Amino acid sequence: MKNVFLIGTGLIGGSMLLDLRSHLKDATFYGIDKDNSHAKRAVTNGIIDKVAVMGDLINADLVLISIPVDATLKVLPQALDLVPENALIIDVGSTKKAICDVVSKHKNRRQFLAAHPIAGTEFSGPDAAIKNLFQKKTMIVCEVEKTAFKLQELAKELFEILGMRVRYMTPAAHDRHIAYVSHLSHISSFMLGKTVIQEEENERDIFDLAGSGFESTVRLAKSSPAMWTPIFAQNKQHVLDALDGYIENLSRFRESVKNNDHKAIFEDMEQTNRIKTILKGIENGK
Amino acid sequence: MKNVFLIGTGLIGGSMLLDLRSHLKDATFYGIDKDNSHAKRAVTNGIIDKVAVMGDLINADLVLISIPVDATLKVLPQALDLVPENALIIDVGSTKKAICDVVSKHKNRRQFLAAHPIAGTEFSGPDAAIKNLFQKKTMIVCEVEKTAFKLQELAKELFEILGMRVRYMTPAAHDRHIAYVSHLSHISSFMLGKTVIQEEENERDIFDLAGSGFESTVRLAKSSPAMWTPIFAQNKQHVLDALDGYIENLSRFRESVKNNDHKAIFEDMEQTNRIKTILKGIENGK
Repeated sequence: MKNVFLIGTGLIGGSMLLDLRSHLKDATFYGIDKDNSHAKRAVTNGIIDKVAVMGDLINADLVLISIPVDATLKVLPQALDLVPENALIIDVGSTKKAICDVVSKHKNRRQFLAAHPIAGTEFSGPDAAIKNLFQKKTMIVCEVEKTAFKLQELAKELFEILGMRVRYMTPAAHDRHIAYVSHLSHISSFMLGKTVIQEEENERDIFDLAGSGFESTVRLAKSSPAMWTPIFAQNKQHVLDALDGYIENLSRFRESVKNNDHKAIFEDMEQTNRIKTILKGIENGK
Repeated sequence: MKNVFLIGTGLIGGSMLLDLRSHLKDATFYGIDKDNSHAKRAVTNGIIDKVAVMGDLINADLVLISIPVDATLKVLPQALDLVPENALIIDVGSTKKAICDVVSKHKNRRQFLAAHPIAGTEFSGPDAAIKNLFQKKTMIVCEVEKTAFKLQELAKELFEILGMRVRYMTPAAHDRHIAYVSHLSHISSFMLGKTVIQEEENERDIFDLAGSGFESTVRLAKSSPAMWTPIFAQNKQHVLDALDGYIENLSRFRESVKNNDHKAIFEDMEQTNRIKTILKGIENGK
């Protein structure tokens, strides 16, 4: 592999390259970013060797697309138009249905692999990239049967370098599951932050009283709106379903508090305590 | 100080004693717990020297009450009845108004200090107790003027041993603030966990896909229902207000998603991003 291109020199793509570089010694790593200052920072941070433009993809062996999912809908077909035969393109966006649909009829569809690494932090940009972000994490791969077999094998090798286990799903199942375990968490965190900030406008110094519990539940509210807005837009129906379920549960809990139904409050929490066992599974990288 | 009593040998009280023991070398530490196995574990874990009963409080110099807040309403007046002159009783519950009210007319009111340490973990019981839990954390003290001056001074010394800074508030202000920065976080986390567990009943293996973001937002859903049910009950009105604000914000966000109002979604998140600065304040122990 000679020429590796990263489109979008941020947290996810940047972290991937930091790990891949140490294994792909003979390759040159190029970065394409609509924000030129990000591309330059990526050079400084040792993520890429050189800044490039879309036209350079005619020399690519591997292209990683790691940009907001609305931009992926435009950039992915362009990249598939440009790359030479045998090049592999992987996108790592947090939605999969719209992205798979947009290239379903593309003549080079077999050169594309749709993926989503279940890893990240609340930070973004090239300065947020870190080594070993993907160790023991899950890489979801969608519509694997539509990717050329040789390129499937190549992708597997790359994911092994990153230390990931691969799980195969349909784009529809991916989008539904992820609405619950990722997208809803982000909304609950953002709206919690918003509610407490609103209250602070009336009550000064409220955050003096916030402890590690609050910090943990609002951590995701630091996330990038530019990245998350198109995710919620593309996964609209599943996000609405997840939000409906969440608001319904909150409203019922509110009723229990209002009606002094302490038994219902207790049972609601006790039944949810089984999240302990579930989280233990996540920690162990199961 | 000779005889220190801990009522409730769990996470908070246990952690306090672990730190206090190393400074109060001449004292004997007694534990009272309605769950005898907890009291015994507390001896094994080096939290207390001996198991005791309420009647033993007649020999107390210092009593820490660290039990569910509904139990405090009964136990605190009993303890104030029993302790000798000059003994100090501190409670550390997560609500303050009901607790202060229940002893407002007690003849020994001046021997009581109402406090709430902004520290903890999602775990509970004597095995959850850890050293240095309170270092650089805030201790909220309510109605300090109602405590005898000498005992105020003693409490301050103890909080200094724990490494805490003290902040004074009225019980009403405490309960309102804490509804937002603590109680609401717990409800949002419990209901997020519930919503995802419900979805899992339809969709198998959904938790395989959960990453560190989900883990962070549902961490508090591991908390003890026995501790949290009476907190929500005692802080009912403020909890309802906080929940109303939260559900309102979630419903508006849902509307924005439904109406494809991407500008509103973006701005909602962008404005909440200032939580970054706020959380930095928390991390720095400001």
